[in-house]
Amino acid sequence: MTRADRMFPADRITLREVGLRDGLQLVHQFPDTRAKQEWLQREYDAGVRYFELGSFLPAQRFPQFADVRDLIEAAGQLPGLRGAALVLNERGAVDALQTPIDELVFVLSATESHSQANTRRTRQAAVDLLRRIVQMRDDGGGAEGPLVTAGIAMAFGCSLEGSVDPDEVLRLVDACAEAGADVIALADTVGYAVPRAVATLVSQTRRRIGAIPVGLHLHDTRGMAIANAAVALDEGVRLLDGSLGGLGGCPFAPGATGNIVFEDLVFLCENQGFNTGIDMEKLIQVREVVARSMPDEPLSGALAKAGLPRISSQVAV
Amino acid sequence: MTRADRMFPADRITLREVGLRDGLQLVHQFPDTRAKQEWLQREYDAGVRYFELGSFLPAQRFPQFADVRDLIEAAGQLPGLRGAALVLNERGAVDALQTPIDELVFVLSATESHSQANTRRTRQAAVDLLRRIVQMRDDGGGAEGPLVTAGIAMAFGCSLEGSVDPDEVLRLVDACAEAGADVIALADTVGYAVPRAVATLVSQTRRRIGAIPVGLHLHDTRGMAIANAAVALDEGVRLLDGSLGGLGGCPFAPGATGNIVFEDLVFLCENQGFNTGIDMEKLIQVREVVARSMPDEPLSGALAKAGLPRISSQVAV
Repeated sequence: MTRADRMFPADRITLREVGLRDGLQLVHQFPDTRAKQEWLQREYDAGVRYFELGSFLPAQRFPQFADVRDLIEAAGQLPGLRGAALVLNERGAVDALQTPIDELVFVLSATESHSQANTRRTRQAAVDLLRRIVQMRDDGGGAEGPLVTAGIAMAFGCSLEGSVDPDEVLRLVDACAEAGADVIALADTVGYAVPRAVATLVSQTRRRIGAIPVGLHLHDTRGMAIANAAVALDEGVRLLDGSLGGLGGCPFAPGATGNIVFEDLVFLCENQGFNTGIDMEKLIQVREVVARSMPDEPLSGALAKAGLPRISSQVAV
Repeated sequence: MTRADRMFPADRITLREVGLRDGLQLVHQFPDTRAKQEWLQREYDAGVRYFELGSFLPAQRFPQFADVRDLIEAAGQLPGLRGAALVLNERGAVDALQTPIDELVFVLSATESHSQANTRRTRQAAVDLLRRIVQMRDDGGGAEGPLVTAGIAMAFGCSLEGSVDPDEVLRLVDACAEAGADVIALADTVGYAVPRAVATLVSQTRRRIGAIPVGLHLHDTRGMAIANAAVALDEGVRLLDGSLGGLGGCPFAPGATGNIVFEDLVFLCENQGFNTGIDMEKLIQVREVVARSMPDEPLSGALAKAGLPRISSQVAV
């Protein structure tokens, strides 16, 4: 059993709140450190135990992540909380490895064009960098060091290339596994995924990499996110991202909906027979923290508007 | 092969636009007859061939349906268009049967409390009324008369009783089949359905009534509608309702999202491998007719905000 297996047991659902990272990636207005800590604390109180806390990026260009170390420290005070942070280069990895973060997320692009346009790197160079980050982790803490997750952006469609050949994604999956990734997450960065594509790619990926947990990062750009999550659960995926109120837009579709709405995802999972450990009423109330600190940011989410059904626990057949 | 089978062949998807009826059920501001005709014509031009056109209800209480006969007449001018209208009592059926409508939709409640509260009828009395409506149709046009569809409201959960026992729904399904319904539609009136419940109830219903087509009427109150539609397609449902922009709210959840968004449903179906015959770009543009005639009514829908993916036809795997 690998370390990742122990952290993401296949018989349990693991939901990761990425609002504090992906939800803030494109915004100009963002919560200050105190508001972020309140967001974290209140979701923790609602039962959320797994967060993407921020990104190790230059603070001048990404002021919204300047306090990532403070967030990691705050998260460290909350028993059982697991924190991840994004790293996009060696410098970020060096910085992140000096903190007690539980997981580094390194993102590669499924397509050559997006890899070049987004990071000025070939996909092969990205895989090599992933391997170096794993090595840096091993050289540092080793077994005690953080997990390294490889996130494959544009896995279901690309803003530049349109449709993406699943075989190309699977080759990258293989390369990431070979480079030592502990977890591989498929990301529908621009919301092209549809249930059939998710079922196919997820099942092929799981067959391919066996013991390595497969995560799914969905956006609701075209309204398919909950349907995609449902089919992924059917296909055995037990690790899914979401963001409160669906925070986090798409640079290629201004005004479009963002990440899959975390509270609606929790509702889906609970009603599909999974125990998330999350109190939905309390979770929905945390939206007020976000609304207060980002008043211009539209929050999505059907459940927050409609309220829970009368007898939620009895709805599932 | 029954008449309903010929109208809803099991190897083809049939999508019904219910915006002109269910979408207007609760509104105070509504399009005038000319705007409705434009809505109809433009969706027809986009390839939509099946509409719920209105309701035979007292015009004083439901002025939004006072022009149902004009709509039926307008629909009759469009080759290949099929029109349905709601009838809730004998008087409505008499009136509807004097028009060239293709289908009468009669709605029963899955629960005794809702049946009583909504129509002051027991479920048994509603089944008896359904039988009389079928008889009236047979006495009139017979084989040339309209189809009679039984819609079972609250089939996945009830605003009054909360969860609903699927066995109770199945007993009502049996009774409707026995009473002569040509089509049976399961309605998630208040948006309680989740994919697992849809899969179970739909498959049991289909097993139960064999040759009778099963329709599905979904609301997106809790964000599950597209996921529910996806699982229904997997379970063999080929007849689904939707409304442009998700028009049509829920009286028990003010401000909640309404019917499943028609254009997002079309996108799902196309990407799950079904040919709907509908031009999505054109369909989305019809929203402007609705927006113009109901400026205060919020329109939902992810696709309209995000736009179609770059290479839509190649997205599906």
